[in-house]
Amino acid sequence: MRRCLLVRFSDVEITGAFWKERLDCILDRTIPSQHRMLEKHGILESLKLPQPVPLRTIPRNRHDFTTQIFWDSDVGKWIEAASYALHFRGDPAVEARIESIIDDLEAAQDADGYLNCWYLGRDPDNRWTNLRDNHELYCAGHLLEGAVAYFHATGRDRLLRIMERYVRHIATVFGPGEGQKAGYPGHQEIEIALIRLFHATGKRDYLDLARYFIDERGRQPSYFDLEARARGEDPADFWAKTYEYNQSHLPVREQTKVVGHAVRAVYMYAAMADLAAEDGDAGLRSACEALWDDITTRRMYVTGGSGPSASNEGFTTDYDLPNDTAYAETCASVAMVFWAARMLNLDLDGRYADILELALYNKVLAGLSQDGEHYFYDNKLESDGSHRRWEWQPCPCCTMKVLRLLASVGGYVFGVCEDELAIHLYGGATVRTRLGGTSVLVKEVSEYPWDSGIRIAVTPARPAEFGLALRIPGWANGFSLTVNGERCELKPELGYIRVRRVWTSGDAITLTLPLDPRRIYSDPRIRQNANRVAVARGPLIYCVEQHDHTPPLPCLRLPPEAALSETRRRIGTADVTVIAAHGHSAHFPQGAPPLYSGGPPLREATDMMAIPYYTWCNRGANAMNVWLPE
Amino acid sequence: MRRCLLVRFSDVEITGAFWKERLDCILDRTIPSQHRMLEKHGILESLKLPQPVPLRTIPRNRHDFTTQIFWDSDVGKWIEAASYALHFRGDPAVEARIESIIDDLEAAQDADGYLNCWYLGRDPDNRWTNLRDNHELYCAGHLLEGAVAYFHATGRDRLLRIMERYVRHIATVFGPGEGQKAGYPGHQEIEIALIRLFHATGKRDYLDLARYFIDERGRQPSYFDLEARARGEDPADFWAKTYEYNQSHLPVREQTKVVGHAVRAVYMYAAMADLAAEDGDAGLRSACEALWDDITTRRMYVTGGSGPSASNEGFTTDYDLPNDTAYAETCASVAMVFWAARMLNLDLDGRYADILELALYNKVLAGLSQDGEHYFYDNKLESDGSHRRWEWQPCPCCTMKVLRLLASVGGYVFGVCEDELAIHLYGGATVRTRLGGTSVLVKEVSEYPWDSGIRIAVTPARPAEFGLALRIPGWANGFSLTVNGERCELKPELGYIRVRRVWTSGDAITLTLPLDPRRIYSDPRIRQNANRVAVARGPLIYCVEQHDHTPPLPCLRLPPEAALSETRRRIGTADVTVIAAHGHSAHFPQGAPPLYSGGPPLREATDMMAIPYYTWCNRGANAMNVWLPE
Repeated sequence: MRRCLLVRFSDVEITGAFWKERLDCILDRTIPSQHRMLEKHGILESLKLPQPVPLRTIPRNRHDFTTQIFWDSDVGKWIEAASYALHFRGDPAVEARIESIIDDLEAAQDADGYLNCWYLGRDPDNRWTNLRDNHELYCAGHLLEGAVAYFHATGRDRLLRIMERYVRHIATVFGPGEGQKAGYPGHQEIEIALIRLFHATGKRDYLDLARYFIDERGRQPSYFDLEARARGEDPADFWAKTYEYNQSHLPVREQTKVVGHAVRAVYMYAAMADLAAEDGDAGLRSACEALWDDITTRRMYVTGGSGPSASNEGFTTDYDLPNDTAYAETCASVAMVFWAARMLNLDLDGRYADILELALYNKVLAGLSQDGEHYFYDNKLESDGSHRRWEWQPCPCCTMKVLRLLASVGGYVFGVCEDELAIHLYGGATVRTRLGGTSVLVKEVSEYPWDSGIRIAVTPARPAEFGLALRIPGWANGFSLTVNGERCELKPELGYIRVRRVWTSGDAITLTLPLDPRRIYSDPRIRQNANRVAVARGPLIYCVEQHDHTPPLPCLRLPPEAALSETRRRIGTADVTVIAAHGHSAHFPQGAPPLYSGGPPLREATDMMAIPYYTWCNRGANAMNVWLPE
Repeated sequence: MRRCLLVRFSDVEITGAFWKERLDCILDRTIPSQHRMLEKHGILESLKLPQPVPLRTIPRNRHDFTTQIFWDSDVGKWIEAASYALHFRGDPAVEARIESIIDDLEAAQDADGYLNCWYLGRDPDNRWTNLRDNHELYCAGHLLEGAVAYFHATGRDRLLRIMERYVRHIATVFGPGEGQKAGYPGHQEIEIALIRLFHATGKRDYLDLARYFIDERGRQPSYFDLEARARGEDPADFWAKTYEYNQSHLPVREQTKVVGHAVRAVYMYAAMADLAAEDGDAGLRSACEALWDDITTRRMYVTGGSGPSASNEGFTTDYDLPNDTAYAETCASVAMVFWAARMLNLDLDGRYADILELALYNKVLAGLSQDGEHYFYDNKLESDGSHRRWEWQPCPCCTMKVLRLLASVGGYVFGVCEDELAIHLYGGATVRTRLGGTSVLVKEVSEYPWDSGIRIAVTPARPAEFGLALRIPGWANGFSLTVNGERCELKPELGYIRVRRVWTSGDAITLTLPLDPRRIYSDPRIRQNANRVAVARGPLIYCVEQHDHTPPLPCLRLPPEAALSETRRRIGTADVTVIAAHGHSAHFPQGAPPLYSGGPPLREATDMMAIPYYTWCNRGANAMNVWLPE
């Protein structure tokens, strides 16, 4: 077990074309367009108390309440992402927008510190009466993360002070003391925000509150039962029927199965990993490991998505991973990256980085369109053409969550373990850090994930001994390494090759990772993928789109003997490596009975082309498929 | 085009073991148990006006109203089925129950003839204000069918007179005249009921009213728009968003695609076929043929089910036939049998009888458990084990619909076309009819669908010339025929062999239909069935159940070369023919990465056993699959 702390994104410069294009797109388009949407949809107006905006209910929304109740969180997420952007490009207009939001929040905050605009505007007497459903602590968490990010970006602490007041209020309401509520959030999120606040301020009270929420969760009698009865409701009327939905069915240390609403679950696991790292809490750590094992060996799509079901926005049963009805919420993958990063903080083990990379390059990237202004909420692995990206929707959580992750993607590239620098992700990035008692500039240059050659220049201020730990992805079938041009035969330990030496300026490593297109098969217990194969190259999972094929997509077959070749192609606005193969198209012979026949379909040769999954649906909605019949 | 009228079930004696067992079960168990359920759930009490029973709303019901609004129809369906039962077994207790219901209906009926207990009890001022959603005409239709059936069974016409009064009232409310509403039902059903009433009474007004409802449907401006505005609602707020949902998006003669709610659709098509037969209406007939072509060549499961989607309880897009999320409502298959029978009335063509048989032996039969008291509403073709039969549910429509069909199954066996008797279904049945100017007894003896030998004894009162048309099912790969022991080489015309001769007492035909187990492949455009195969024998579609297998069901593979053999086995309480094969079980090699791997799964030999689809889930809920990976 080797603790390895990720280097903050603000200390990392992204130089490679792959991520730089996405960052530029976010700065140029996504952040301004999301602000316009917050304005257009009344979300910013909703902060201007005491005049609440008209309530917009969502027809037939399962919860029978408006998604407006989440709006504070959307504002918090936008502040967070926009603050990250300020690191890259100072922008007085963005700062002015954030300051204007802070004005409203400052004006809205109650004398006792309470700050939830929905309750303050509409239902002030019923604060903290329905943690199970009404997202007050979730909203607080996101505003808090925004406040911390804005403080880091600008040094201005007005929002941070507002939020600290709110947190101090929350700490008076919740806790084990007389007259306090032994509650915890219905939607976990504030826990990781509190830990970030602790890191930003050094105040342990915040860490203690996060720990309280985690420790209290799932104790009997259920707080959500007590709270429902206090509202005059029968707890059995809870629409989700089970507290597995919000992972309060058991104390968290006793949980071994990933269950319920996926975003709630994975945010909680991330917080548990954070606390395990802070406290050396073996119980939390082993629960995290069991849950990690469960999700990655039984309940995860090949794209890194999870939570197949729309009905609970979450987990179902082992090996139940339907492709065409996959929910696999974008937010859940963002959360998965957060959790994987925190597991990596706990323990430098490539299996965590493998999932981090998988979810990031496939599911998370797919969540945002090439134009930076269209989104997927749910991420199918097969579509008949009806699934499409949207510009906005009543519950816009995923838009901002994908934004805040991508805007800070540099924060997942490097980790520092004592006097060793780990490189988790490749693709062109530079970091300056202290190693072996000196300042070191490490510059990774590559066109990863397209090209296999990776060059790492190490420039210490003075010669010094320290280590570099280079991740060898789990998907890599071999690799080659040279140090200053000399071939090096090291074996990876837990997914990392560790090069320890005295480094001097001008030293360089080259790492070559094989990027040949490959086939992926799924465990036969995943019933939807029987006799099907997925195609991948490096960290990228591929798919076929109707746009590139004449036969109806369901008729395509990729025979086992077909060679996979690669070529560059423009897909939408991006040049990417696509995978080509001589495949088959199946069809019934002329004169066969329609629909069902006693004889198998015929096959004829057809050219197939697979594109990176994350690029799909950028040329208009059309049919798509990841798991191809062989 | 040869008109061929089905012989009423009451003129047919079912003698074969296959159907007799089901009939006995229905008489012994289903009819009494459904009466108990009607009593237990307050449905019978709801007829006892003016004291309405407490309203039971269904939590989160999509329509935001109670299913209680359908209860009159459930009572009507039970009366219909119980009346059919009286043909087989006089039962004073059943008659007393029906008479007691009639007492309540008589007392409830309004002075003007109106008779809907939900509106009379709760909302008398708002009759006929929401045909789109509130099922008044649907309820009237089912009560009417009950009244006709009870009249036929007992000769007692009290309920018939009550319902005729109601229909006369309906005819004053709806029509083209001044002050009349140009409306039609939101849920079609009354049309076929009115045609049955016409047949029972000979009064053409009833036929005219049915024709009015059919002809008016889909005219612009939409009646449902006008009606919504009259309620002060915006028609655009219609939850289903499109009038395709209730097939009023176009005049019925212009409809060529099966769309929307499947039960509504297919009841309407059945009524259209009825009217085409009554009126020789070429427009209705050709619409029926186009719709038949559409459903059977693009939108039907291999089991005869249709309507894959739960969200509209109906149709989606061409070739969209998911197995594990199949809705394929039992009621829709019952309706499909009704429609197929009416198409067969219009035209003696085996393709109609093929679908009638397919839906009846597979989907409809699957809807009722072996114990006669448990039901499927939706009929998946693949289950992970979570799908199970239920004893009752808030919308119990399917329970009574499957009952009324099975109780009158004898009515689908024989048809008469001038002086020709057609035999559509085999399995042991006797009919006495007039052919060639004399009374003829035709006795079909077989153990179909288990045994391939069918013997048909023809006993005319005196020698006479007439024809027999014996159906050769579309699935049959050849057949052999003897007449009085002599081999006969006739070719089927439109699915029927036609034997015309002078028949004398003692004449007999033997027909042998090959029942070898066979494989069925699906059109590759059905994406869910790629590289999969279904197994069938005669009219029966088979499936595998976890109960009979050790490896997890999703791991089973039926290789193309595996021979299919048959044997008799007891499944639950029935002896059936099962299909055995030497198959494979797929699994990842020891040491492979979990969930996803670069190499294909290994296969090892395993014995597989498929059981008739209709018998599944009679040994407890467990995983099931129809489409097996090859």
